[in-house]
Amino acid sequence: MAGLSVVTYRPEPSEFAWTFGGVPPVRRVRPGDVLELWTEDAFGGKVRGTEDLVSRVIEFPYVNPQTGPFHVEGAEPGDTLAIHFVSIEPARDWAASSTIPFFGSLTSTHATATLQDPLPEMIWMYEVDRAGRTVRFQARRGDFSVELPLAPMHGTVGVAPANLEARSSLVPDAHGGNMDTPEMRAGVTCYLGVNVEGALFSIGDGHYRQGEGESCGVAVEGAMDTVLAIDLVKGRMTAWPRLENDTHVMSTGSARPLEDAFRISQVDLCGWLGEDFGLDPLDAYQLLTQVSETPVANVVDPNYTFVSKVAKQYLPSVSPYGGMHGRLSDVAAAYRAERA
Amino acid sequence: MAGLSVVTYRPEPSEFAWTFGGVPPVRRVRPGDVLELWTEDAFGGKVRGTEDLVSRVIEFPYVNPQTGPFHVEGAEPGDTLAIHFVSIEPARDWAASSTIPFFGSLTSTHATATLQDPLPEMIWMYEVDRAGRTVRFQARRGDFSVELPLAPMHGTVGVAPANLEARSSLVPDAHGGNMDTPEMRAGVTCYLGVNVEGALFSIGDGHYRQGEGESCGVAVEGAMDTVLAIDLVKGRMTAWPRLENDTHVMSTGSARPLEDAFRISQVDLCGWLGEDFGLDPLDAYQLLTQVSETPVANVVDPNYTFVSKVAKQYLPSVSPYGGMHGRLSDVAAAYRAERA
Amino acid sequence: MAGLSVVTYRPEPSEFAWTFGGVPPVRRVRPGDVLELWTEDAFGGKVRGTEDLVSRVIEFPYVNPQTGPFHVEGAEPGDTLAIHFVSIEPARDWAASSTIPFFGSLTSTHATATLQDPLPEMIWMYEVDRAGRTVRFQARRGDFSVELPLAPMHGTVGVAPANLEARSSLVPDAHGGNMDTPEMRAGVTCYLGVNVEGALFSIGDGHYRQGEGESCGVAVEGAMDTVLAIDLVKGRMTAWPRLENDTHVMSTGSARPLEDAFRISQVDLCGWLGEDFGLDPLDAYQLLTQVSETPVANVVDPNYTFVSKVAKQYLPSVSPYGGMHGRLSDVAAAYRAERA
Amino acid sequence: MAGLSVVTYRPEPSEFAWTFGGVPPVRRVRPGDVLELWTEDAFGGKVRGTEDLVSRVIEFPYVNPQTGPFHVEGAEPGDTLAIHFVSIEPARDWAASSTIPFFGSLTSTHATATLQDPLPEMIWMYEVDRAGRTVRFQARRGDFSVELPLAPMHGTVGVAPANLEARSSLVPDAHGGNMDTPEMRAGVTCYLGVNVEGALFSIGDGHYRQGEGESCGVAVEGAMDTVLAIDLVKGRMTAWPRLENDTHVMSTGSARPLEDAFRISQVDLCGWLGEDFGLDPLDAYQLLTQVSETPVANVVDPNYTFVSKVAKQYLPSVSPYGGMHGRLSDVAAAYRAERA
Repeated sequence: MAGLSVVTYRPEPSEFAWTFGGVPPVRRVRPGDVLELWTEDAFGGKVRGTEDLVSRVIEFPYVNPQTGPFHVEGAEPGDTLAIHFVSIEPARDWAASSTIPFFGSLTSTHATATLQDPLPEMIWMYEVDRAGRTVRFQARRGDFSVELPLAPMHGTVGVAPANLEARSSLVPDAHGGNMDTPEMRAGVTCYLGVNVEGALFSIGDGHYRQGEGESCGVAVEGAMDTVLAIDLVKGRMTAWPRLENDTHVMSTGSARPLEDAFRISQVDLCGWLGEDFGLDPLDAYQLLTQVSETPVANVVDPNYTFVSKVAKQYLPSVSPYGGMHGRLSDVAAAYRAERA
Repeated sequence: MAGLSVVTYRPEPSEFAWTFGGVPPVRRVRPGDVLELWTEDAFGGKVRGTEDLVSRVIEFPYVNPQTGPFHVEGAEPGDTLAIHFVSIEPARDWAASSTIPFFGSLTSTHATATLQDPLPEMIWMYEVDRAGRTVRFQARRGDFSVELPLAPMHGTVGVAPANLEARSSLVPDAHGGNMDTPEMRAGVTCYLGVNVEGALFSIGDGHYRQGEGESCGVAVEGAMDTVLAIDLVKGRMTAWPRLENDTHVMSTGSARPLEDAFRISQVDLCGWLGEDFGLDPLDAYQLLTQVSETPVANVVDPNYTFVSKVAKQYLPSVSPYGGMHGRLSDVAAAYRAERA
Repeated sequence: MAGLSVVTYRPEPSEFAWTFGGVPPVRRVRPGDVLELWTEDAFGGKVRGTEDLVSRVIEFPYVNPQTGPFHVEGAEPGDTLAIHFVSIEPARDWAASSTIPFFGSLTSTHATATLQDPLPEMIWMYEVDRAGRTVRFQARRGDFSVELPLAPMHGTVGVAPANLEARSSLVPDAHGGNMDTPEMRAGVTCYLGVNVEGALFSIGDGHYRQGEGESCGVAVEGAMDTVLAIDLVKGRMTAWPRLENDTHVMSTGSARPLEDAFRISQVDLCGWLGEDFGLDPLDAYQLLTQVSETPVANVVDPNYTFVSKVAKQYLPSVSPYGGMHGRLSDVAAAYRAERA
Repeated sequence: MAGLSVVTYRPEPSEFAWTFGGVPPVRRVRPGDVLELWTEDAFGGKVRGTEDLVSRVIEFPYVNPQTGPFHVEGAEPGDTLAIHFVSIEPARDWAASSTIPFFGSLTSTHATATLQDPLPEMIWMYEVDRAGRTVRFQARRGDFSVELPLAPMHGTVGVAPANLEARSSLVPDAHGGNMDTPEMRAGVTCYLGVNVEGALFSIGDGHYRQGEGESCGVAVEGAMDTVLAIDLVKGRMTAWPRLENDTHVMSTGSARPLEDAFRISQVDLCGWLGEDFGLDPLDAYQLLTQVSETPVANVVDPNYTFVSKVAKQYLPSVSPYGGMHGRLSDVAAAYRAERA
């Protein structure tokens, strides 16, 4: 494990990607590389106080900047890219959230259109206590304040989409993108099907923490220092983003209405239980009915996202994708040992 | 606490209720009573082996029998009924699950209608290990077998609905009913708005365990011995079923599409954070965005159900509904002490 | 045809039904009877001027009163009731419409719940010009006024539901009910599956006219003088309400989300094209793809409703349901001749 | 009107566009130009007999080829492009339709995912009778055959999308695209908001006829000879595609679930009634409730599409968009006179 190949990259503001697909790579990397990356927050760092209303400081479509894309040497359509999150750490001691007119799950939107007025636009600023591993919620219309555990994650992880498309970084779909799931935390391996040569993956949209569903559409948004270990599974396609950590395997689905996101994630997980674990589809269906956990990721983005997960302890003892998660966990351990 | 009033009731087969509303009470009970009840499984106990296909042994609409309804003395429209689950224990050492033609989340249904053939109808039988607190999953088309933790709950808890309606025991809605949430376990207090004199509540549909979403529509279905402590909140209406346990407050929503169930549960929880905890609606919306857990209950019933929950540790220190959950927990403790 | 059996019935205010199911019949009628009925408007006649806000004059759930139910002699579960609309004529020279807080397609609702304020509650009164066969729209916030063609229809037609249920008269479902389709006009025969002895059908919710979708949820609501001819198809069940007129056959579906209402109506119509017209399901699917008309009925009620229709000229030359529509059209002609 | 500027263009197979956005223009055209175009069918002309199964002859994503894009001189973001359909005529004497595995409204799909088998894949070929203006449906599993009126339309009309995106030609959204509405016929003017310099519009997906909803997802697909007259409305944005013909104004909405497509089209039409016709939003809402027609376009594509239309006779007497439709209709008349 000596001789880790480490790539360090911090984008200039002019280097951000605003879409998955349709943009040239910022770097070429190799399977086996470790990447030390910095990601800007979803606001491009422009919301720094309660007066910095999104409608005032953000010019659409320049929202949710991505670090990337990275061209992975040897990645071809039909392969699967594996991205292991070694660490995800806040790069600032503050973060921001906001209501945004006609965006969020508890308001009418441009899609769920009504004749009503929008909700008020407001900003909430969060202080980060790195030692205590917390962020502080402070009510805007009252005195209530509370420390919440830091739980860093990336809202957006994806590759260039299929079908010659380029999709906004606000969109989650089969290529990954803005899935906004708290499961995308340190220690997880994310599997993404490769649609174009080089895969062209990007990450962004760090959240210092987020509830399930991301109700108002804006988490505790913050810049991140993130370390990834990447690898490639040649000749095996992955239709929808899958995740694996030490205890669970997980499938995602992104669609509207929300039940379709649920269905996709469950059907994909049934398929995975067949491919790697040897279960019959109906047995898998029955088993998932009794044991699956299905944390909803977002109910706010252009597609809604569900995660369906099952604990490995309830499955045949198999290391899926040829043991990829274990190997990348070893790389992560080696990296941490080197840095220690 | 001496002098607990305990009502014991085990229905005859002829006494089951198949709807919420539209049936006369089987017993009159009083606020403060403890109820020792037995509930039949959703199949009416008729699925006892892998040959007992639902389409063969069940005559619709005689499915999902309810124990009740109970007339609560003094309950009037505009009040809230509190039902505390003291204990929920398997009444048999076996349980059953099944696929049912055109029912479940991973098949077309009578509502999501297609021209495709149904999935095969199959039964899975589960053995209960009471000492080990497990049930055993055994694949039907393969050798795989695994012990799953026992996690008893009631799929169906409800009162007579509003609007002069009678609803099938398969339906979840504002009156409760077939919500199918694993949160309905021992230790929880369920708050239900009273729509008719006497409230007329029933319970049923015991699950020895269930995954989130209840994918195939049928959990590990089993008869239950269940103990309840009930009480009444006079003059306060509860629009959608709410739950409280020692650590969390929770709101439910039941609707289609699934995002509407999510919205209802979140808007209701925002309202609750205002009513009892003094938070402004937009502050509540922001706080929930960062801390709420939203376990999906079912994606299979005539309405889908979501639960939105927030840990009390992130809220102002308040005992909602005038401390009802604490008082009923005390009754439960007294009952257990008496029985010990 | 001499010797038509004509039943005339005008309900007292105390005789209205507010649900389908759960109420005793007001009259017993026989297959072959002609019924002369009067129906109150959906507001119970209480909205008579622009100050009569619904939230002020209506006490829920006493909205959308039904004339009925009628017990049809000989009707048993598994039969089909045929109701032919001989005539539907305004019983008043005025009608009313309204916005209702959190009700309608272009506002958040109690199901599609948001934190926004409701739209303003307003009343629009319509004058009827019986000679000119028009109603007059008059803007409330401007001078614009326009004559609209009178196009009388019944929003609500249904029988007692299956599954021991009683459903609010605001709900459309497999039993019919509040479908709110403009296709329910004079000259149409409506087929409804019988779920309980006597069928127990009711009608109400007259609309002097209505657009497709009934956007704000409230049509030009008015009392009606309506004449029906009824008959029974023994031993043939109809799963969802079907309609037939001289030129088209139509199936309805009521569900959420709206695509499920579409799917139900299309799958049912494919089935009908098989049952009565001999088409293979996939040929029916292909033919409907090219020729079906699918007027959306309502996008506002607890279930949304679609109608799928196909012109008889594109089908094999068959009289469905044994020529029932033709026979009831003859009864209608005989009735009109007698009254002329 | 003498001196019409006519551009004639027939793409080589290598020149087709498979996306909106992301491809360079094939021609530069000017406001006021008349375009004589040829469009290939959605199958790329490869389905020529009942053995040419789509899964065999089509290589994804090379489906639904577009003729274009065209760069319109002077078109800038914030303008509106007006495309008037002078004529749309079948370019072949045959056309084809098909079921496609896991595509269509009456089957589970990759989004509405289930564990069921797909429906059989079948082809239906249609003969065109140009003199009789009909196409012939011939059942595949039976003898039934029937002549259907020719009703040519374009399923796909759009510009490059906003937000730096490129979208598959199978997708309908705010940029237009694969809306699949029978309203896109000769005589209609389509208004599209311009998102990028030059607008970059394309057309394709000719249907010799199509039912409302396009149930199986595939209309009577055929190559077209189409003549357009185009113009530009400077400085006025159009958020969603709008249509105007001699009798109606129409707004479209494309989204999932289907009720959101309905909502978008209705809210947009309310807005249009305000912008050009001076109606208050609530008066517009009320008027649409009573008079709007809402033909569903497709219930099969990645977004579903609704059209909301209102007859001009029910509106204040105004020529919207500064009389654009009238002027382009005059150009069409001049073109026809020149060609006569």
